[in-house]
Amino acid sequence: MKTNSIAWILIVAALFFCTVASAQRNQGISVIPTPARVVSPEMDGGKTTFRIAAPQAIYVSLHGSWMNPDDNCYGPLVQDAETQVIPLTRRADGVWEVTIDTPAAELWTYNFYIDGVYTCDAANPLIQRDGMRLFSVLLVPGKLSENYQGATQHGNLNMVWYNSPTLGFERRMYVYTPYGYEDAKNRKVSYPVLYLLHGGGCDEDTWESMGRVTAIMDNLIEKGQAVPMLVVMPNGNSTQSSSPFMQIPAPEQAAATRGVSNAYVNSLVKDVIPYIESHYRVIRKASGRAVSGLSMGGGHTLAVTAAYPGTFDYICPMGCGAREGDAAFLEGLLGIKKAGYKLYWLAAGTADFTYSGASALDKIMTDNGMKHTFFTKDGGHTWSNWRIFLNEMVPLLFK
Amino acid sequence: MKTNSIAWILIVAALFFCTVASAQRNQGISVIPTPARVVSPEMDGGKTTFRIAAPQAIYVSLHGSWMNPDDNCYGPLVQDAETQVIPLTRRADGVWEVTIDTPAAELWTYNFYIDGVYTCDAANPLIQRDGMRLFSVLLVPGKLSENYQGATQHGNLNMVWYNSPTLGFERRMYVYTPYGYEDAKNRKVSYPVLYLLHGGGCDEDTWESMGRVTAIMDNLIEKGQAVPMLVVMPNGNSTQSSSPFMQIPAPEQAAATRGVSNAYVNSLVKDVIPYIESHYRVIRKASGRAVSGLSMGGGHTLAVTAAYPGTFDYICPMGCGAREGDAAFLEGLLGIKKAGYKLYWLAAGTADFTYSGASALDKIMTDNGMKHTFFTKDGGHTWSNWRIFLNEMVPLLFK
Repeated sequence: MKTNSIAWILIVAALFFCTVASAQRNQGISVIPTPARVVSPEMDGGKTTFRIAAPQAIYVSLHGSWMNPDDNCYGPLVQDAETQVIPLTRRADGVWEVTIDTPAAELWTYNFYIDGVYTCDAANPLIQRDGMRLFSVLLVPGKLSENYQGATQHGNLNMVWYNSPTLGFERRMYVYTPYGYEDAKNRKVSYPVLYLLHGGGCDEDTWESMGRVTAIMDNLIEKGQAVPMLVVMPNGNSTQSSSPFMQIPAPEQAAATRGVSNAYVNSLVKDVIPYIESHYRVIRKASGRAVSGLSMGGGHTLAVTAAYPGTFDYICPMGCGAREGDAAFLEGLLGIKKAGYKLYWLAAGTADFTYSGASALDKIMTDNGMKHTFFTKDGGHTWSNWRIFLNEMVPLLFK
Repeated sequence: MKTNSIAWILIVAALFFCTVASAQRNQGISVIPTPARVVSPEMDGGKTTFRIAAPQAIYVSLHGSWMNPDDNCYGPLVQDAETQVIPLTRRADGVWEVTIDTPAAELWTYNFYIDGVYTCDAANPLIQRDGMRLFSVLLVPGKLSENYQGATQHGNLNMVWYNSPTLGFERRMYVYTPYGYEDAKNRKVSYPVLYLLHGGGCDEDTWESMGRVTAIMDNLIEKGQAVPMLVVMPNGNSTQSSSPFMQIPAPEQAAATRGVSNAYVNSLVKDVIPYIESHYRVIRKASGRAVSGLSMGGGHTLAVTAAYPGTFDYICPMGCGAREGDAAFLEGLLGIKKAGYKLYWLAAGTADFTYSGASALDKIMTDNGMKHTFFTKDGGHTWSNWRIFLNEMVPLLFK
């Protein structure tokens, strides 16, 4: 056979091979039996292995929030050139895996990319939700994360609908009651309350899902580091009646609240507090009320304490700040000073974009003779920091 | 240039092209900017469109439970030759989509396959969990599904830890309280209770997540079709203290319950009922207690009513049955007859593998002069049927 005939046969063969291989992948069908059960993640001896069955995928990679801890580093839904990933390696049985040094103790989030498409780790029951996004969770045990799970004495978490006349419709919130609250022996005990507010894009579920509130509270109370207290987590989006995950459409009145200044903030004091104080055994004065929040929730904390001075004795905004020269803000702050308070605890990470605003607030308070704590650490506008701040702040309350 | 040289150049070029294309895909990196926001699913004019951004995927398909409604048809984690799918088509912008005739009114589950790998629909907030599996949800409005969402008057859902001395450790359950339960005007009202038990592989969260219990109860009560009642959803796996999703390790005593006959069933009457009756305003006698469950939970319903005759006046097992000639079972059943009851309501779909056992139970009861209803319809051992059964059964209770 002549050389050029062989060559043409090889060309055709090569192109045919590419086409067939492509078509076979184009069915997405696995021809290789995969193991019945994939274990992922697997932590062992300082290493962690991640696995996913993906026999027909061409490229599988892993993104983990430990790859850039200063960021709120969720992987995008479609992998791009900037997404920090490490590749997995395909085994003969179609399972892909990678082993890394176990990251430092912390609650990290991660996901796989299957040919560039985001997916959670189906083998891992630990999922978190932040707004519209779902993540797989790698909880590395150790000192920093010791309160994010465990505890043997658990409080209850109640998902409560309450009427909000200020906004004009019923709304949903979470109420944590501490271990022992339900016991007959405590039926004459009144408990203090922490009102804990979420950030932009989040809802009444997020502090629990991302912030591990019940685990942190259970641990701190069980260890005797915090006084038993309720934690109330409302929905801070006045145009919502509940988390979008509930798929309950907000009534018409909700949209109308968008233009109303301080609509939600007013409802905190006029609707939420009265509901809590008439339905739970709680202390009904400022000495039994704390208010805290992250980011937008920090902004709500600043706003509600300025609008209603003397309502909360414990004021703990996180990840937010003020602008020097803001006369209206200063007036509100001075109203708080005049009414009095027991604790003013401000927190922001040095890499947080709100750090300069928080520093400004710190300075304004110092300049105006207002006792306060400005808690800072490294890191940014991240759930890692919100959890750490919660752990720091809660033991200071009601003492 | 000679023909065979051109041929070899073409061979090399062809192989190089395949390699480069492969390598580019091998990075999984998108070189095409994808739209900022993908809408999925989109129901419009009798059609539903599903979309996912997957610029580097080779094959994207959709699996939906409407493709085989008689099955509990969750897609496997890795697509295989038997998985029922339809392919999506890739747009120039890297978003894949497919438009189908909107399925009949129902709560369907679905997922995408990205080159054979299961993933949920990241654009869709409606997610369900069944055991270790997560699904995206397509809720098609209509008569059958009208109670699966909506309602304007919402009850509360409480996640409660209670001590279970019978098993030897604390455990978690869900307690639904109906709209109005919290109102001051009802503070002297005592409510009846439905104890609702889950199936194998599930936990205290599953009836709510898959069964849409709060939505169904809210709707039936608001429409006046059901009396206001509490619904108690315990964890029926005695080796667990809570859902695996809580990541709270069960204490050592839990594993020891595996060999103990009726351990969980005993704890229902000795621990759960007393907890409910001492912590909620409920009717504390058989006329105010209903028990129901699906599959393993149906089995628990049969077992607890046989072991504790006269405890529950409303007995509603689903998706379970009996064997003719089982003398011990008959003895238990006759004990229920002797103690008396108000309603015995048995349900199974004709395509359910338990249908023959349910039919046998129906016959045993008829043969022994025990008044009862055997509710049947088409369909199998599916969440579609459990939800439909719940909708049928709850309006019959406490009347």
